[in-house]
Amino acid sequence: MQTLVEAARRKDSALIAGLDPVPARFPRELRDLPETEATLRFCIGILEAVEPYAAAVKLQAAYFERLGPAGMETYADLIGASSDLGLPVIADVKRGDIGPVAAAYAEAHLGVYGATCVTVNPYMGEDAVLPFLEEARPRGGGVFVLVSTSNPSSYEIQEATDPPLFEFAARLVARLGRSDGDYPDAGAVVGVTRPEIGARVRDLLPEALFLSPGYGAQGGDATGIRPLFDRRGGGVLVNSSRSILYAYEGTDSDYTQAAGEAARLTRDELRLAGAHL
Amino acid sequence: MQTLVEAARRKDSALIAGLDPVPARFPRELRDLPETEATLRFCIGILEAVEPYAAAVKLQAAYFERLGPAGMETYADLIGASSDLGLPVIADVKRGDIGPVAAAYAEAHLGVYGATCVTVNPYMGEDAVLPFLEEARPRGGGVFVLVSTSNPSSYEIQEATDPPLFEFAARLVARLGRSDGDYPDAGAVVGVTRPEIGARVRDLLPEALFLSPGYGAQGGDATGIRPLFDRRGGGVLVNSSRSILYAYEGTDSDYTQAAGEAARLTRDELRLAGAHL
Repeated sequence: MQTLVEAARRKDSALIAGLDPVPARFPRELRDLPETEATLRFCIGILEAVEPYAAAVKLQAAYFERLGPAGMETYADLIGASSDLGLPVIADVKRGDIGPVAAAYAEAHLGVYGATCVTVNPYMGEDAVLPFLEEARPRGGGVFVLVSTSNPSSYEIQEATDPPLFEFAARLVARLGRSDGDYPDAGAVVGVTRPEIGARVRDLLPEALFLSPGYGAQGGDATGIRPLFDRRGGGVLVNSSRSILYAYEGTDSDYTQAAGEAARLTRDELRLAGAHL
Repeated sequence: MQTLVEAARRKDSALIAGLDPVPARFPRELRDLPETEATLRFCIGILEAVEPYAAAVKLQAAYFERLGPAGMETYADLIGASSDLGLPVIADVKRGDIGPVAAAYAEAHLGVYGATCVTVNPYMGEDAVLPFLEEARPRGGGVFVLVSTSNPSSYEIQEATDPPLFEFAARLVARLGRSDGDYPDAGAVVGVTRPEIGARVRDLLPEALFLSPGYGAQGGDATGIRPLFDRRGGGVLVNSSRSILYAYEGTDSDYTQAAGEAARLTRDELRLAGAHL
C-alpha cells in the first residue's frame, strides 16, 4: 500500500483517475478504429493528461475483458504505460473467490499484469481476501475490500441485516490488514454517496485507507468526503472516472485537454476539502 | 437456463464437470509444453472424456486469467470446443459489479466468449445481478448467484447477521428470476458442505435450480445433496472439479481415462442419491 501512499504524497493529491473506457463515448477521431486500438489510444491520452494531478489510476477490468483476449493485451499495455509514467495502478477487478482460485486471480492482476493494488469482494469471507494480500504484500501493494459501495441497490444487502453486513466487511479488513508503512495493506472501498455510513465505517477502521468512488458523475461531492476522514483529516483516496474521461463531451475541447483540466479541478476540490494522506 | 436443463435431462445427469486447470498437476507428458498449450490440451482431453457423463462444464475463469491474454484465447477455445461437443458452459466468474460495468462483464462472458450461464456475486445488490440476467435471458442462459458457498470462512459473512446474509441473497434470486421453461433463469450457488443451510435456502427458493459445489475433493457427499432437493426431488446440479480432473494421480491410468471413469461414477452416485432435473 505504501507505493500508493507515497505517490499521493508526492503529488499532494487524493485523486484516483478511473479508466472506464466506453468506445461509444470516445471522440470522433477515434471511433473508426478497431475498439481495442481506439481504447488503447484513448486511455494513453488520458494517462498523459491526468498524470500531473492524479495520485494513481484505477483500471476497470470489465471494459477490457469485454474486448476479448486482445482487450487484455490493451489492459497489460496500459498498466505498463501507467508504470512508465510513475502512476501506480489499482486493478478494479472486485474478484471474490477462494483459496487457490483467489490466488490465481491475485497472480494474474498483481503478478502477470503488474497492478499495485486490487479491489476484492468479501462475500466469501477471509478465504477470498487473504490470497490477494499475500500476493500484494511483498510488492508494496495492497487490497481494497468492498465495504460500503456507492450504487443505489447496495443498501439492500449491505445495510439490511443486524448488525449490517458492511460492519462485518469492515471488521474483516481490520483483522487482515498489516501496516507496511503509514497505512495497513488492507483498505476499504467506501462510497462517498452515503456519508453517514462512511462515518460508521471510519469508526470501525480508524487507521485504514479508503478508496472512495461515487464522486462526480455518481453525485458525490467534497462535503461527502469529510465524514470519511481519519482523525488526522486524511486517509481517503477519491476515485473519479467518467467526469474526467468524458469532460470533453458538449465542449469544443480536445478530450485530453478537457480531462487534464477536470483532473486538476478535482484534485484542487479535494485539497480544499482537506483530503491528504 | 433451459439450455442447461435440457442437457441435464438428455444425459440423465446432474453432474457439472469443473475445469480448474492447474499446470503443476498435469500429467508428465504435458508438463514441458508452454502453460497455455498444456492447459488447452489437458482440458480438451477432459472435455472429450467427461462428455458422455456430464450435463455441462464449468470453467473457472481465474485459471485462464492467470495465463494472461493468451490464457483468454485458451478460455475462448475451450468454450468453443465444449459447444462443439454439445456441452453447455457455466463461466465461473463470480463477477460482482454494477450497472454498465456488470453489463460489460456480461457481454464479455455470455456474448464475446459465448458461455451459457455465469456465476455472479450479490454483494452490491440487484444492480450487480440484473445486467447478467438481461444478457443471459435472450440466449436461453441463466445466472447462478452466490448464496451459500462451500468454503470454510463463508459462515463468517454469510451466516453471522440476523437475518443471515444468505437469506437476503436467496430473496434477491427469487425476486429477479423469471421462468423460461422448467426453472427460473436466476439460480443459486449453494454448497453441499452445509446441508442444514442448504435446506433453509431451499425453503426460500422452492423453484430455483441450485449449482452446488463442494462435492468430492471438498468433502461433500451424496447424502449432503438430498436436503437441497426441491419437492419433486430434483433441482440440483452438482459440480465436481478436482476429483475428476486429477483422478489419475497416484494411479497408472491415462488422465483422460481416469477422468471419464470418475465422471461416470459421480454421475451414478448422484443418480442413486436421486438427483435429477
